[in-house]
Amino acid sequence: MITVRDRAMMARAIQLAWRGQYSTHPNPRVGCVIARGGTIVGEGWHERAGEAHAEVRALSQAGQDARGATAYVTLEPCSHFGRTPPCARALIDAGVTHVFAATTDPNPSVSGRGLAMLRDAGIKVTEGLLSDEAGQLNPGFMKRMKTGRPWVRLKMAASLDGRTAMASGESQWITGADSRRDVQRLRAMSDAILTGVGTVLADDPSLTVRREELGDIGESTEPSRQPLRVIADRDARTPTGSKILRGGNVQVFCASSTLATAPAQDLAALGISLTGVAWKDNGIDVAELLDALGELGINELLVEAGPTLAGTFISEGLVDELWLYQAPVFLGSTGRPTANLPLESMADKVQWKVLDRRQVGEDQRLILARR
Amino acid sequence: MITVRDRAMMARAIQLAWRGQYSTHPNPRVGCVIARGGTIVGEGWHERAGEAHAEVRALSQAGQDARGATAYVTLEPCSHFGRTPPCARALIDAGVTHVFAATTDPNPSVSGRGLAMLRDAGIKVTEGLLSDEAGQLNPGFMKRMKTGRPWVRLKMAASLDGRTAMASGESQWITGADSRRDVQRLRAMSDAILTGVGTVLADDPSLTVRREELGDIGESTEPSRQPLRVIADRDARTPTGSKILRGGNVQVFCASSTLATAPAQDLAALGISLTGVAWKDNGIDVAELLDALGELGINELLVEAGPTLAGTFISEGLVDELWLYQAPVFLGSTGRPTANLPLESMADKVQWKVLDRRQVGEDQRLILARR
Repeated sequence: MITVRDRAMMARAIQLAWRGQYSTHPNPRVGCVIARGGTIVGEGWHERAGEAHAEVRALSQAGQDARGATAYVTLEPCSHFGRTPPCARALIDAGVTHVFAATTDPNPSVSGRGLAMLRDAGIKVTEGLLSDEAGQLNPGFMKRMKTGRPWVRLKMAASLDGRTAMASGESQWITGADSRRDVQRLRAMSDAILTGVGTVLADDPSLTVRREELGDIGESTEPSRQPLRVIADRDARTPTGSKILRGGNVQVFCASSTLATAPAQDLAALGISLTGVAWKDNGIDVAELLDALGELGINELLVEAGPTLAGTFISEGLVDELWLYQAPVFLGSTGRPTANLPLESMADKVQWKVLDRRQVGEDQRLILARR
Repeated sequence: MITVRDRAMMARAIQLAWRGQYSTHPNPRVGCVIARGGTIVGEGWHERAGEAHAEVRALSQAGQDARGATAYVTLEPCSHFGRTPPCARALIDAGVTHVFAATTDPNPSVSGRGLAMLRDAGIKVTEGLLSDEAGQLNPGFMKRMKTGRPWVRLKMAASLDGRTAMASGESQWITGADSRRDVQRLRAMSDAILTGVGTVLADDPSLTVRREELGDIGESTEPSRQPLRVIADRDARTPTGSKILRGGNVQVFCASSTLATAPAQDLAALGISLTGVAWKDNGIDVAELLDALGELGINELLVEAGPTLAGTFISEGLVDELWLYQAPVFLGSTGRPTANLPLESMADKVQWKVLDRRQVGEDQRLILARR
């Protein structure tokens, strides 16, 4: 039987897990609560890859009180030696008698093993409590483990009449300061940010997380690194002086035939990683790109691109979430479209489900998923 | 001193006035409450032009109880003989001792006279209670009395990427059934609906209020007539078989030089009223059109037009409220824009203030005003 108290304990574990929202990659965000009756005796969350797992931190805080206690974990405890010893083992050794796990490990090769290890040791195991809420902690980790590809968030800043820039390319600023701060949080949550060389040439963005613009992150752990910046750049046209190259941590995807060219070698000489992938008439082979990013351990990919790359992601159905920031302005009928998306008839229209809609300063932020 | 009870009484009078939302034109919506202490002894609202005013209905219900009572009216009582005797006189004769008036008559030639008549008779008069809320009852009447022009609502149904139709012109249906029902209410509130001949030729709309689609109107008075349908049609190209011409009650604005032509005379032969106005390069002279509609007694004009006429209204700053229905779809970058609005630079962008934002079925309805 699951009680209201159990739900509250798991909700607290999920809350703790969110503290790792900017810092755990490529690991999942995990939280753990150890309780005896209605009293929490230990709490923990995973902060950074290579550091202690949530269960170990919570057990450490609980000490001897863990004996006979109940553990609430947002993700199935690991059963294998990775960078740290298996958490299932730690729970057994601590004398916990009941474990609630909100979700099972999405990795097909280990899923269920942690829970089996607990059951084999005589510990009572209850699965699935607040599984939806816990799943939302790690859409990218879950998807990558299952499909090999990252979770794709496409971000757009547009006017109410669907324009992202004037015909001249002028675009700063459509949305307000609050939206731009919100985008900083979105970047900080992401493992990688993808753009196209067209955007690099036109806007010369840095695509970094600027800590001061991120604002107050509450009790969350400080971002541990900049997201990987990824450029789709068939011919390695990214200028060596581009802001996006500063500080390194950049991955360029070009055509395989470009790898041996002088521009590619100039970039490589700067320490930039270049990988050859397939290209189609309308640009990079996005499916292949996503596979490659999955192999690099990218859980959550943020696409901040121009209308061509954005249009490819939409038309190929590869957007998991569209984050649309709408400013209460009209940029006029000569402005640039949100996405190059040539559709013939109403039957071809792209239908979205609204997952979230909220006011961000004077703008509106919509989170949409393909219907 | 204004008490909470006074506010509640005036709020009730405003609520009553709204019952005339579909029926009072060209008169304003007015409500009246007669109260003794905390007890309402009479209530009334104006239903239709030519029928009793709100005060007279409320006084009739109150009977002898009106003597020594307080009256709450949403608009200054009239002081002149129109289709009915002056309401200020009726309040005096009934023995009311205190009158709260939320707003004064906007007509400069009579404004304040009704209240003066009451004061001269020794009645205590308090002005301005809930004046904003009462003013929202009659934006068109207020504006027309002050400026000679109707209140302009521009309605658009668009996708999230700012398109109203496919390149082919195909457009049915972008928004959902709930939005279309909402538009029926918007039409029923309007004195006139304006469209361009381009829309007539492309879509052959009827632009009528369809009572069955209007749904439950609660305690509101049934719509008393169809809104006047107005067509901007320089060369009188509206086909005589168009749906919009059925049932008459149509006003065509054409070029003055068109009036003597055969197409214009064909329309006139059907009983259609034609008026010549000035035309500019980008279409009808909208300012002159609004003056003409004001002279016809149009308080609230709904513009349901294609991108050309919509663009003219926006670029000339003549939109009082933009009602934008956004469907959660993308129609693609080849779709038609919401408005033909060529803007050069970000400095030219049209900035809107969001007056209201709500979910209508799966769509979103924004009510916007020029900032």
